[in-house]
Amino acid sequence: MRAVIPFAHSDPKSRLAPVLSPNERASFARVMLEDVCKHVRDAGCRPNILATADIEDAPAPVIVDERPLSTAVNDHLQPPVAIVVADLAILTPTALRRAFDLPGDVVMAPGRGGGTNVLVVRSPAFSVDYHGMSLSDHRSIAERQGLELVEIDSHRLATDIDEPADLVEVLLHGEGPSAAWLAERGFRPVPADGRVEIERR
Amino acid sequence: MRAVIPFAHSDPKSRLAPVLSPNERASFARVMLEDVCKHVRDAGCRPNILATADIEDAPAPVIVDERPLSTAVNDHLQPPVAIVVADLAILTPTALRRAFDLPGDVVMAPGRGGGTNVLVVRSPAFSVDYHGMSLSDHRSIAERQGLELVEIDSHRLATDIDEPADLVEVLLHGEGPSAAWLAERGFRPVPADGRVEIERR
Repeated sequence: MRAVIPFAHSDPKSRLAPVLSPNERASFARVMLEDVCKHVRDAGCRPNILATADIEDAPAPVIVDERPLSTAVNDHLQPPVAIVVADLAILTPTALRRAFDLPGDVVMAPGRGGGTNVLVVRSPAFSVDYHGMSLSDHRSIAERQGLELVEIDSHRLATDIDEPADLVEVLLHGEGPSAAWLAERGFRPVPADGRVEIERR
Repeated sequence: MRAVIPFAHSDPKSRLAPVLSPNERASFARVMLEDVCKHVRDAGCRPNILATADIEDAPAPVIVDERPLSTAVNDHLQPPVAIVVADLAILTPTALRRAFDLPGDVVMAPGRGGGTNVLVVRSPAFSVDYHGMSLSDHRSIAERQGLELVEIDSHRLATDIDEPADLVEVLLHGEGPSAAWLAERGFRPVPADGRVEIERR
């Protein structure tokens, strides 16, 4: 199966600005993309990066499409196809395979905070809408089209990396280059009031 | 199998203070406890609440133990036993059964932020340490004792409810009384910049 991985160039990972410089954010976004492409391959899929501009030394074939995310993705939704977001830094091939092996016209991995992190689309009647509350929107679209939507319960698939608190998950659960990238830059988990926080040396 | 559910009385859910009054927090903690006890039963386990003081009309038999959490839990760790935290408001019997059915001397469901939300203990050589970074500590304890520790990848088991952002998950994924309690009090998910936030009417 083909896996489309959307990747936006402009101001990547802006909500990590409190802990990473603009250059670091661009670099970290790129490392996570490599991580995701590798795991997609290891799970038996062919990754295609759907990017807003060309990517030098890309870790997978790039399709350049400058249109808004949902429009661009809907143009590449020939089933069967998987859509995997580019910032799943604690992804494993096992977690992806669990999603790929589930039945259903559409398989969806909810992202924490109401997003959609992985979609497996097996029906041409489905379309995506990443704007707003995509989890609820995708549930509605499937229902409206009479499609069976199956949701997968996975912390690794639910954890997209947007905010400083998300970096804790990468340090505690990441097995790939994204976790190594953070560790090399001095980030480590430290116990805080009730949860674990990150600290940079 | 027996399931021990620790429950602390003093200032419950303090990090929800920005959105809930003290009385509401106590009430919500109680509703989540009922939710968890029900799902534990539906997953085929016998729930026991390990509480710092007696609970009126408790949803399961109560053992009162005023000692610190880890000390109290370690006294009730006769295997096989499950330890389930009391604030898993998007728990389902299916998610619990997945944990119960996994092999291993110890099965652990990591909580978001480095906590330990579910433990299934099948060896008397294991002990708990909930203080600090319990996820890392439990990995170390198992390794030191030569025990096979298996981690389960579940968003529902990873999501304990501590902060306002966690309430979004309850509204989007909860199927029990905790989600209904929030909805009745006017909470609803609204799209915000990149994620979903909660709003109270």
